[in-house]
Amino acid sequence: MKEVSGGVCAPKGFRAGGILCGIKASSKKRDLALIYSEKLCTAAAVFTTNQVKAASVLLSQKHLANNRLRAVIVNSGNANACTGEAGLAAAKKMAELAADLFAINPSDVAVASTGVIGVQLPISAIENSIEALGNSLSNDESGHMAALEAIMTTDVRKKDTSIEIMLGEKPVRIGAMVKGSGMIHPNMATMLGFITTDAAISAGLLDKALRRAAAVSFNRVTVDGDTSTNDMLLVMASGEAGNTEVTSENEDYRAFSSALEAVCIRLAKAMARDGEGATKLLAINVCGALDEAAAESLAMSVASSSLVKAAMFGQDANWGRILCALGYSGVMFDPANVDISIASEKGEVKVCANGAGLAFSEEDAKKILAEEEIEIKVYMGNGSGHAMVWGCDLTYDYVKINGDYRS
Amino acid sequence: MKEVSGGVCAPKGFRAGGILCGIKASSKKRDLALIYSEKLCTAAAVFTTNQVKAASVLLSQKHLANNRLRAVIVNSGNANACTGEAGLAAAKKMAELAADLFAINPSDVAVASTGVIGVQLPISAIENSIEALGNSLSNDESGHMAALEAIMTTDVRKKDTSIEIMLGEKPVRIGAMVKGSGMIHPNMATMLGFITTDAAISAGLLDKALRRAAAVSFNRVTVDGDTSTNDMLLVMASGEAGNTEVTSENEDYRAFSSALEAVCIRLAKAMARDGEGATKLLAINVCGALDEAAAESLAMSVASSSLVKAAMFGQDANWGRILCALGYSGVMFDPANVDISIASEKGEVKVCANGAGLAFSEEDAKKILAEEEIEIKVYMGNGSGHAMVWGCDLTYDYVKINGDYRS
Repeated sequence: MKEVSGGVCAPKGFRAGGILCGIKASSKKRDLALIYSEKLCTAAAVFTTNQVKAASVLLSQKHLANNRLRAVIVNSGNANACTGEAGLAAAKKMAELAADLFAINPSDVAVASTGVIGVQLPISAIENSIEALGNSLSNDESGHMAALEAIMTTDVRKKDTSIEIMLGEKPVRIGAMVKGSGMIHPNMATMLGFITTDAAISAGLLDKALRRAAAVSFNRVTVDGDTSTNDMLLVMASGEAGNTEVTSENEDYRAFSSALEAVCIRLAKAMARDGEGATKLLAINVCGALDEAAAESLAMSVASSSLVKAAMFGQDANWGRILCALGYSGVMFDPANVDISIASEKGEVKVCANGAGLAFSEEDAKKILAEEEIEIKVYMGNGSGHAMVWGCDLTYDYVKINGDYRS
Repeated sequence: MKEVSGGVCAPKGFRAGGILCGIKASSKKRDLALIYSEKLCTAAAVFTTNQVKAASVLLSQKHLANNRLRAVIVNSGNANACTGEAGLAAAKKMAELAADLFAINPSDVAVASTGVIGVQLPISAIENSIEALGNSLSNDESGHMAALEAIMTTDVRKKDTSIEIMLGEKPVRIGAMVKGSGMIHPNMATMLGFITTDAAISAGLLDKALRRAAAVSFNRVTVDGDTSTNDMLLVMASGEAGNTEVTSENEDYRAFSSALEAVCIRLAKAMARDGEGATKLLAINVCGALDEAAAESLAMSVASSSLVKAAMFGQDANWGRILCALGYSGVMFDPANVDISIASEKGEVKVCANGAGLAFSEEDAKKILAEEEIEIKVYMGNGSGHAMVWGCDLTYDYVKINGDYRS
């Protein structure tokens, strides 16, 4: 697997672009993006599990039913959620406007939105700028970068990647961009992710690979426990790489699936690191649990604990809060078997063995916790289940960012 | 039901006291409390559901098995949790030291601890001060206040009450104190609550009344979602009021049970209001849900949302976050039936009807949200289930308090 440039434009057959159309009067950054494929793509997607679903989610679920897409149009600045019938009409209009650019079927266009909830989408702003959006498309990195900027909201950092693997003799590429820094929790709250690939792969296996990749990446990230109305992770496969189409779970499938997983994990970690107000990326590494599901629940409980997150911000090796969070995860275990270590590039210190505290150097612990990437290692002594999840610290700035987001 | 003075010393037969014994070298406030009954009491208690249980919880569960108590000894500054065999020995020693003061059986003494996790309890500090603790006991409000101060940790406000009701011709009193401001979530995390009453009541009915009262009060409060290792809510009934013993679910039982519920709700609200760093008490009032359990889950989801809590701190009527939190509560409902209003002493404004936003005056909303007590009213349009839960806003100070609690 090697790095390549180009983002979602790196795989063959894709163009992307982004413009400022003025969805939020106050905003000066791009807010409307389009990713377009020259050919009809095989597509797969996973959506929010929130029962309150944005109009864009409801429409895109319908358009994805046949696993075929040509384009995805995305706006930031307005979630088009809790907007009733008018919101659904606006989402449909977005798909039609994009489809008209290329004389394609609106049902081959997915729609995504992110931003404030409960305010009607100013569809005329999109209508007035649709030509400009079409003109902004390019098949190189500049198109990717314009689209990426347009999907971001409170994101501080750009989160994207593109890689190449070999399937047989053929180079196959995967490009991806995500936005999301607040409202992130299992099941990808207010996260939008768009992945392109030129792999030839059946719809069923593309879907399977995407679900596994999401399960071990975006669904293992938590920033604040809020699951949004708008989540969407979407992959479009153009088949332009010319590889033998992947139609069974053979070696090519495993190579593609593991590359997709690596891409998603990289972006999920970047999303946790970019958590609203975050100063640190936390990786919670639980092993020795009964099974993978138990390990995931235990790790998510630690990553979600406000007290653990605040302690990490304070560079305080308060391992009691870690053990406490394991204890209320809902997973059964014997505390007397639990070991805990805290690690970073500056070293590792074991703070708890067999459920009780160890004497350790507070100075060493401070040095470790001063780093930007912290790993909390937990051994449950209970089996061979393992899971890694990611989160971030809880800081003054989280409160500041979310205390008055609407204005 | 009328207010009386005296706290846990208000009911007949109880004495209380508190001293500074030096559990934390740095602390200048009282840290060791005792509540003592002249006669053997009928007792009931509920404990943390965390699988990691403090030594004091494990011991007190044992001592409560026969539903009989004479005393409870409590320390703050150290949770005696995750302290292994040495911790269990220390908890037993605490019970023995208290028992020796009165030549009673150690198994008639409950033990409670609160403070930092994973540090051995300095039992010698308690041993050296046990005589002074015994001498501090009094049967008036001063004893109650000394004990209350001694159980507090990061609490800013004192949380206590005492009331009187009539059971038949006899006045019966209930007195109570609680501590708890951080790590508070369903099932009463790092909350200690001690209730005394002079009612004569059977052990079974005392237990039943306590469980119902806890379910609709402390278990409906959330500050930060962390459930502690040390929770304990304990009631001791001396029987000294001279009422006809309550042995069936008659009128007297209903009067006692509803008074106990009122006492617990009052203290639960005070605890939410005293959430770490909190500036506002939030009451989430869900009605029209399928049943009470559904209403409670929906309300707790809103009260636990970091985004809703931060919006309330910012006095931002961001109702989309409320609907979003309802949506990920795990309860099934149709968003198109949901109405939401925001209210305080300054008025009420309806912000969402049938799942979509209403035009409302932001100025009015700001005025309402500037108050210290905010009620979020949610109508689900789905049945007749109702529940009220309490929480608080998320502020800069929460992060500050918890960023470096150990030092």
